[in-house]
Amino acid sequence: MREIAVFSGSAHPELAVEVCAHLGVPLLPARVDRFANDCLQVQLQANCRERDVFLIQPMVAPVQEHLVELLLMLDAARGASAARTTVVMPHYAYARSDKKDAPRISIGGRLMADLMVTAGASRVLAMTLHSPQVHGFFSVPVDHLHALRELAAHFRGSDLSNAVVVSPDLGNAKEAAAFARLLGIPVAAGAKQRFSDDRVTISSVIGEVTGRDVIVLDDEIAKGSTVIELLHRLRELNVASIRIACTHGLFSAGALKRLSEEPDVQEIVCTNTVPIPAEERTGKLRVLTIAPALAEAMRRIHNGESVSALFDQG
Amino acid sequence: MREIAVFSGSAHPELAVEVCAHLGVPLLPARVDRFANDCLQVQLQANCRERDVFLIQPMVAPVQEHLVELLLMLDAARGASAARTTVVMPHYAYARSDKKDAPRISIGGRLMADLMVTAGASRVLAMTLHSPQVHGFFSVPVDHLHALRELAAHFRGSDLSNAVVVSPDLGNAKEAAAFARLLGIPVAAGAKQRFSDDRVTISSVIGEVTGRDVIVLDDEIAKGSTVIELLHRLRELNVASIRIACTHGLFSAGALKRLSEEPDVQEIVCTNTVPIPAEERTGKLRVLTIAPALAEAMRRIHNGESVSALFDQG
Amino acid sequence: MREIAVFSGSAHPELAVEVCAHLGVPLLPARVDRFANDCLQVQLQANCRERDVFLIQPMVAPVQEHLVELLLMLDAARGASAARTTVVMPHYAYARSDKKDAPRISIGGRLMADLMVTAGASRVLAMTLHSPQVHGFFSVPVDHLHALRELAAHFRGSDLSNAVVVSPDLGNAKEAAAFARLLGIPVAAGAKQRFSDDRVTISSVIGEVTGRDVIVLDDEIAKGSTVIELLHRLRELNVASIRIACTHGLFSAGALKRLSEEPDVQEIVCTNTVPIPAEERTGKLRVLTIAPALAEAMRRIHNGESVSALFDQG
Amino acid sequence: MREIAVFSGSAHPELAVEVCAHLGVPLLPARVDRFANDCLQVQLQANCRERDVFLIQPMVAPVQEHLVELLLMLDAARGASAARTTVVMPHYAYARSDKKDAPRISIGGRLMADLMVTAGASRVLAMTLHSPQVHGFFSVPVDHLHALRELAAHFRGSDLSNAVVVSPDLGNAKEAAAFARLLGIPVAAGAKQRFSDDRVTISSVIGEVTGRDVIVLDDEIAKGSTVIELLHRLRELNVASIRIACTHGLFSAGALKRLSEEPDVQEIVCTNTVPIPAEERTGKLRVLTIAPALAEAMRRIHNGESVSALFDQG
Amino acid sequence: MREIAVFSGSAHPELAVEVCAHLGVPLLPARVDRFANDCLQVQLQANCRERDVFLIQPMVAPVQEHLVELLLMLDAARGASAARTTVVMPHYAYARSDKKDAPRISIGGRLMADLMVTAGASRVLAMTLHSPQVHGFFSVPVDHLHALRELAAHFRGSDLSNAVVVSPDLGNAKEAAAFARLLGIPVAAGAKQRFSDDRVTISSVIGEVTGRDVIVLDDEIAKGSTVIELLHRLRELNVASIRIACTHGLFSAGALKRLSEEPDVQEIVCTNTVPIPAEERTGKLRVLTIAPALAEAMRRIHNGESVSALFDQG
Amino acid sequence: MREIAVFSGSAHPELAVEVCAHLGVPLLPARVDRFANDCLQVQLQANCRERDVFLIQPMVAPVQEHLVELLLMLDAARGASAARTTVVMPHYAYARSDKKDAPRISIGGRLMADLMVTAGASRVLAMTLHSPQVHGFFSVPVDHLHALRELAAHFRGSDLSNAVVVSPDLGNAKEAAAFARLLGIPVAAGAKQRFSDDRVTISSVIGEVTGRDVIVLDDEIAKGSTVIELLHRLRELNVASIRIACTHGLFSAGALKRLSEEPDVQEIVCTNTVPIPAEERTGKLRVLTIAPALAEAMRRIHNGESVSALFDQG
Repeated sequence: MREIAVFSGSAHPELAVEVCAHLGVPLLPARVDRFANDCLQVQLQANCRERDVFLIQPMVAPVQEHLVELLLMLDAARGASAARTTVVMPHYAYARSDKKDAPRISIGGRLMADLMVTAGASRVLAMTLHSPQVHGFFSVPVDHLHALRELAAHFRGSDLSNAVVVSPDLGNAKEAAAFARLLGIPVAAGAKQRFSDDRVTISSVIGEVTGRDVIVLDDEIAKGSTVIELLHRLRELNVASIRIACTHGLFSAGALKRLSEEPDVQEIVCTNTVPIPAEERTGKLRVLTIAPALAEAMRRIHNGESVSALFDQG
Repeated sequence: MREIAVFSGSAHPELAVEVCAHLGVPLLPARVDRFANDCLQVQLQANCRERDVFLIQPMVAPVQEHLVELLLMLDAARGASAARTTVVMPHYAYARSDKKDAPRISIGGRLMADLMVTAGASRVLAMTLHSPQVHGFFSVPVDHLHALRELAAHFRGSDLSNAVVVSPDLGNAKEAAAFARLLGIPVAAGAKQRFSDDRVTISSVIGEVTGRDVIVLDDEIAKGSTVIELLHRLRELNVASIRIACTHGLFSAGALKRLSEEPDVQEIVCTNTVPIPAEERTGKLRVLTIAPALAEAMRRIHNGESVSALFDQG
Repeated sequence: MREIAVFSGSAHPELAVEVCAHLGVPLLPARVDRFANDCLQVQLQANCRERDVFLIQPMVAPVQEHLVELLLMLDAARGASAARTTVVMPHYAYARSDKKDAPRISIGGRLMADLMVTAGASRVLAMTLHSPQVHGFFSVPVDHLHALRELAAHFRGSDLSNAVVVSPDLGNAKEAAAFARLLGIPVAAGAKQRFSDDRVTISSVIGEVTGRDVIVLDDEIAKGSTVIELLHRLRELNVASIRIACTHGLFSAGALKRLSEEPDVQEIVCTNTVPIPAEERTGKLRVLTIAPALAEAMRRIHNGESVSALFDQG
Repeated sequence: MREIAVFSGSAHPELAVEVCAHLGVPLLPARVDRFANDCLQVQLQANCRERDVFLIQPMVAPVQEHLVELLLMLDAARGASAARTTVVMPHYAYARSDKKDAPRISIGGRLMADLMVTAGASRVLAMTLHSPQVHGFFSVPVDHLHALRELAAHFRGSDLSNAVVVSPDLGNAKEAAAFARLLGIPVAAGAKQRFSDDRVTISSVIGEVTGRDVIVLDDEIAKGSTVIELLHRLRELNVASIRIACTHGLFSAGALKRLSEEPDVQEIVCTNTVPIPAEERTGKLRVLTIAPALAEAMRRIHNGESVSALFDQG
Repeated sequence: MREIAVFSGSAHPELAVEVCAHLGVPLLPARVDRFANDCLQVQLQANCRERDVFLIQPMVAPVQEHLVELLLMLDAARGASAARTTVVMPHYAYARSDKKDAPRISIGGRLMADLMVTAGASRVLAMTLHSPQVHGFFSVPVDHLHALRELAAHFRGSDLSNAVVVSPDLGNAKEAAAFARLLGIPVAAGAKQRFSDDRVTISSVIGEVTGRDVIVLDDEIAKGSTVIELLHRLRELNVASIRIACTHGLFSAGALKRLSEEPDVQEIVCTNTVPIPAEERTGKLRVLTIAPALAEAMRRIHNGESVSALFDQG
Repeated sequence: MREIAVFSGSAHPELAVEVCAHLGVPLLPARVDRFANDCLQVQLQANCRERDVFLIQPMVAPVQEHLVELLLMLDAARGASAARTTVVMPHYAYARSDKKDAPRISIGGRLMADLMVTAGASRVLAMTLHSPQVHGFFSVPVDHLHALRELAAHFRGSDLSNAVVVSPDLGNAKEAAAFARLLGIPVAAGAKQRFSDDRVTISSVIGEVTGRDVIVLDDEIAKGSTVIELLHRLRELNVASIRIACTHGLFSAGALKRLSEEPDVQEIVCTNTVPIPAEERTGKLRVLTIAPALAEAMRRIHNGESVSALFDQG
């Protein structure tokens, strides 16, 4: 059987190290050079020939640098005669660009999927895509994992007798409902009206939350404006307590600090699909690792075993 | 400038005739033969050479027959040297197969998009796709129209002072919210838990509906089980009145008769994106035509004028 | 070595069962759902990951249903990470649409070949294609088996001293000549002038048939009009006896009953490339099985052994 | 409207000159250089930008040289921003390689079609393809002309009251039947058993020829072995007279001289789809020009008019 | 005729403005949004439907941002039904990644060419590619302009009686020779041995330079290490004077300041293919504009006129 | 593991035999038929199914014949279900057509690369491509070997204390410099101005050669005009001795005889990438074999071992 060969881009090497530790294989070296004209060049510094290559790279800031780096790694792996190249992308940021809600805009989620295939991707391992339809943007097989199981395991450790899951947005309500089912508790949702990328108004919360222990669940938190806005509504509705959970803790523009300073937020839980610098972490933050799940999926992909068991969210 | 050439498949010739009347061009003849071995053969019976060809075919039952017929028409147009071939698909039924929510299933919405391109489609004109992400399944340009404007015009003719739009499903709630904004009224949504294709339970309605004049809005109604289930909840919540609206009135398995027999349903409104046999229509049904919108979009596509004005829903 | 994984569509499960018995592997379950909007969804219900997948589906009526079902199965297998997917298509009905004999018609034989590749077919195993050129319509490898060996074995059991093979059509005359060589007897052919799909006139028979024991050979019999017409000519030429043979016994529109009722037709022989319902079978029908040949070809394809030995018709 | 731009490869410049005369446009210069390492380079020596380019090149000996030259011309036209490039190929020699009748052989007819598209062909104008299925080998539109009309016009000038068309081969019998219908006379055919490329045995002639004025019709005559063999059979059957007709008069290996020396062959008729050197022509040869037909088809292709009228063989 | 529609990315809007002024058309607005997760979204804010779209974007630092922005613009233009989209790329930085001189590295020059085509590029207008072979990396037509004419016009204004063109590198010597021919003067070249991206040793100068007025010519100057190294050698060889010329004045890492401070460098001449901030410019710098050449090429591309006249370097 | 299967085209069977001897595998039989119409047909006469197929064919005269033969072999291998097909092309003649230095010419080096991929090439093993950028013309992995190691080993056997490597052309100067480094001696180069394919003028030699033992190095020698011209310059500069070396000894048009007759040429060294007929060889010719290098590369490709060690030129 072809051997496995795992490389990491520069986006999140810590996660790659952790994944390799779980797999029991070395993280192979890749060198990225930046020329005087700002162009990148990638060299995979271990034999790829006929290997089952995995390239680990979440799309985090600087997204364009990490994207082009990944495309160059794919090209290098193909040119180096890899038998198969799997992109392990724990966070696919461009998945948010999944529709054409204004004239003459790009649909980045589809475009980047096509670019990865052009550059040489044989398959993709993704985690908690912003919408499930993004799966269909890829012309190569996608294994789509969810972190709800990891998040649920965390919350099961606390008293959920009075708890409710609240989605900040109707768009994510189905996911929140699935999470609520996992925990055996009810669900509610904010009816959000989004005016622009950074200004947001939550007009109302539909569902019962008054007096409840709220677990706010979103797929990702970037600037956190939506969650902040939701907190105002929840306070007006006199909720008992607030915890915040998400898969992708991007926390841009000081969002983590801002959320942590909200006195009634008891805990902020996310996973390590994206790196969070130590100096930005706060006492309320709890980061769960998805490295074991990724490693197990990679092992099954490599061995030709079913990955669908990992799909099950219960 | 290349001339326009419009053909219709056998799915909905009445709509094609109406569209051509609005365009002021003849509906050109196409012949579909079925051989003794059940294979189809299509002949486009007018010159397509260097023409701007439009093929009108919604994906309605029998879906597979109409789909293959369309693919053969595309192949015939390409072989006949059409300059460009636009699929006018007022109802894209396979758009509902837009995600992989079970292991080893097909994603029909993406597959059929790829098949149409393989068969020769240069572009697509669609209406109210089940989810906006389906736009991204196509590798050719898509013009995506919505029928909300037509539906809103209809309801503006009645008293909306106490009205609320109710989406039967959280998944369609964003669309319902957009519709509610068009009408200047609030929105609510059922929190549906779907167990299988034909058994459905609405656990609750989130948002205020008691005492309100409800307009139930869905993108399509097929068996109608979801709407029937929602009606039970709405009655428990003592709504004042109920009207039902959708873009695609598929009304399979006697759904139209069943809904019409619900005594508190005052009106059922849909458009003619799909054909509804005269003998199945009931007194409560009101069918709005989207032929003028399709014709106008086709005219603009042909002339190279902006279609995005037609996107605006207000 | 990758394992073999065999699934059947709904066109001819009996044949799939028989093939799997010969292969000594289980027929894996596949589920086909039809939604309320008449769309199909396929789920392959066994692990396909890195497997050598075979999908058995002849294109028989309802052809369009079975074709789309097959395309969905291909898509599902690809999405499920099959290592290779072989379409086993004992009867490729669209092979008859192999040329453009009228302006602006589709060439279905080429189109369907392209669609299968778009949907994910890695290769095809076919049987007695209507014309040998159809092989060249596929952009993936095709293994093309013939059933002449099975048919010849059957007829060798009877007295052939006065026999002649008659092709109803000059187009199939080469095949008939090959069959005649296998049996060591002469060949003749009808000079057919086809006016439309269901009306046919045989102007004459070229070659000696008077007083002979005739074996009419065609690749497929659908409505049987051509054969019926040929029978009239043969009687005028005072043949001694008549037997009818074909690979694909489609027998649409009561053809089997009609042919069986012709008093001078002694026997009708076909293979099980297509299913023939028990209630339609007559006493004169003899169905030969090609399951062993298919199974052997699949075994060799899977093991990388030469299939060309199976090509040899003697 | 884009202008037309016609270039000729080096295979048959006389035909190109004649076609351009009929079209009323100049034949534009193309330069073919052969480097010291035997590689070819093509330069199209007139502006192609946004032009409707036609490249005239039949595939005649040396076939490989002319094929590669054509592929280089296609590449040059694409690189030079031609709006559309049509290959005018009056003789597609590789069409004879249209099936896989031995294991592990190439199907040249499909391969060359794919290579032309890879090199930049937008469409093809072909004449009398060896089998009609070859049309389906192309993934771009093909206009397929026949020379039967030109040939029939020639023979109508003589007494046909006792004439019969004889196809040397069952494979070409359908074409011969169509030709016979055009002339209103009967048809017969040789039952040929081909052992190798240059040794052939005609076992018998099926159909009435004794005492008849025979017109032998084939699509092409290369070495002429098949026709020579047929002549033996015809003489044994005491035919009254013999004339020979074909579209493509390749006449390799002295075939024209050999056929002309047969005393009972009265006339040999072909068209100028391929060049016939003046020094090889004999007194019995009559070459009909298809330049007007090609020019008319090119004019219609350029103007977007229907070409199908030219398809009609009557 | 389709109208022209010119948009600029954010890499070099000044050049785009100047090009549009020469073309006499407005520069159309394009909006680039950066989301909280660092993803970009592009909106082309003018109708592109059936237009002849040109996107002006040199690949300058930050290269990855500008590259992805361009790819999104291409996708947006395609989705907006542009008739044709030409990338106007006055500087293609990744052209330097044109070979595989170490194992398992990417060939960025080919990869980016493929990505642009995947994203929707119909053709490319480039200037002074690092090597002429890069032209062949593109699968779409490329118009490749050179700035040698503009540079030569500048130097013809001074006394060239004692001048010599010196290429810093044997690799660029052919280009230097062409430039020298334009000026009617001799050529020399440094024999460079490159150890890494930023450390360089010129071992010797081959050709006569002592006592000569040297014009150093390179295609681009980034860090300028090569030129600085060459200056040492030239001084050892007692040249009379030194001027420096290049097409692409990238001048990274303070290169312009450093070169300007060399006392015997009299002048540094480049073009505006890349932007040079006003605050970095020195008194010795002379920037020539290639906007007229680009505009003229675009005009000819749009009108279908020959661009090859612009290729001529004399 | 899949077995290796090596076939040779008709271009250089001796090399193939030698390679197979080094690999310890049989050279499998391939049959090339030429039909009466000059078309080729290839049959691979050993099972290719799931094999790792290698096709050995340098592009030597007659180039077009050998190229088409190779394309047919590729098609046959694909159709015969080869697991992977590697083109072993020790001399890629079309690599010289690597740029567009005149308007409306083909770029043969890119086109032939695309054609090979279309015909079924999975990868390429090449030797001393005319320019390193040609590597980037291929969309499949290329292993690019150099013969400098073999050539250097030969010259190390003689006294190099006064030697200098001279490139006839600035374009090849980088390669000559690499060769000189291997031998530890200096480099010089002719400044060639090429007027046409067969007339050449060397204006000067840059670098020190007077009194030196010259080793002229070029990648290939065809007509030898460039080298002959260089010899004149070298004599004017009173060099001590002259030896000539190249990888590809094409020696067309009597070049080998002509060079051998130059009295001051002591030795002509080339490799067997191309065949040199015994009757053309002269006493001064020394042919080095690259069969061991090719065989070792093929072995590593087959086994998935790194080939990059073979890239190292030292």
